[in-house]
Amino acid sequence: MKVLIVLAHPEPKSLNGSLKDVAAQALRENNHEVKVSDLYDMGFKATLDRKDFLNLQNPDRFNPITEQLHAAQTDGFAPDIKAEMEKIEWADLLILQFPIWYGGMPAILKGWMERVFASGFSSDMFQGKIYDKGLLKGKKAMLSFTTGGAEENYYMDLPDKDPASLLPVITENLKFSGFEVLKPFMIFGAIMLSEEDAEKHFVEYKKRIGEL
Amino acid sequence: MKVLIVLAHPEPKSLNGSLKDVAAQALRENNHEVKVSDLYDMGFKATLDRKDFLNLQNPDRFNPITEQLHAAQTDGFAPDIKAEMEKIEWADLLILQFPIWYGGMPAILKGWMERVFASGFSSDMFQGKIYDKGLLKGKKAMLSFTTGGAEENYYMDLPDKDPASLLPVITENLKFSGFEVLKPFMIFGAIMLSEEDAEKHFVEYKKRIGEL
Repeated sequence: MKVLIVLAHPEPKSLNGSLKDVAAQALRENNHEVKVSDLYDMGFKATLDRKDFLNLQNPDRFNPITEQLHAAQTDGFAPDIKAEMEKIEWADLLILQFPIWYGGMPAILKGWMERVFASGFSSDMFQGKIYDKGLLKGKKAMLSFTTGGAEENYYMDLPDKDPASLLPVITENLKFSGFEVLKPFMIFGAIMLSEEDAEKHFVEYKKRIGEL
Repeated sequence: MKVLIVLAHPEPKSLNGSLKDVAAQALRENNHEVKVSDLYDMGFKATLDRKDFLNLQNPDRFNPITEQLHAAQTDGFAPDIKAEMEKIEWADLLILQFPIWYGGMPAILKGWMERVFASGFSSDMFQGKIYDKGLLKGKKAMLSFTTGGAEENYYMDLPDKDPASLLPVITENLKFSGFEVLKPFMIFGAIMLSEEDAEKHFVEYKKRIGEL
């Protein structure tokens, strides 16, 4: 199995950085191929703009969706975006590793999704290439995330009391492109975590990875 | 009234760019003071990292929350962040103007929130300075957003069928810091909008601004 891990944390020694290492090592030990996009380490550009396209269809008025569709047909994406697209095409499984910041993905990961999950590459709503007809159909995705606060703060208000439905927006975005979204791996209360508890989580995560 | 408008769109001629202009003009005609943070025009850095801080409390292992609290106490935020904080402190009303991309704020605006709504500046959960004790209590905020798709796609699944609850995460983030969040201004189906319909929306928005 080919696995792309996308990490969104500025500190390699962080819990998220460590989880990326745990997953990469466990996958390789199980003879899977692993690529890692460590977005902060790459200095990944988070902002979608004109520079994302080699030739604009309408330079007078920049419309992101129009230009993405045009670029998909003319191989016109900027090199950094194209490189990420090639990793996604290569991968069978996408793991997104991130802390929840202000209720969602860190901006650098949101930007990765906006720039790389381009119309015409991941989906095409104008052609009905969404959900089970999404362009990335056949691939799987898993969210591995951490939260600052304790578990009960996060899902007491969820109708099904199921932490797995904590990030419906991201899950929906992935499904929209055709991904089968696996159960997430979650660590709550990261702020208060002791070294000992962190180690326990690493063991759990390694086990989870082994079951993939 | 002092109003800060934060715009997150790469194209000045876009619907969002035009709405920013409509609001700024209407507010000034009503003798309000207006400041604008056009994030793309400013080349605003979306990614929270070590460079956001003039002196790190713990350079060995970068922890964003710890460093934000430290910077709040030592006037240690980078100049671009400090400038935005000063605008927020100055403002009575904050208007966020943005398109919904992948179900939420564009990455550049998410990054603005992560870097500028810093722990110790907008709230302090460790001191209980949240919600009605939030550090920005007394200020008001309004979301003005556009969506690509038609209205019914967006709120049919909401329990209260109320489009105003479409962006609960952002609304919650603002309330967490003490803002009173006003009813949003929304334009659905931006992709299909004719010039004529756009003009009608501008008239509606100008009227809404006049009632603030």
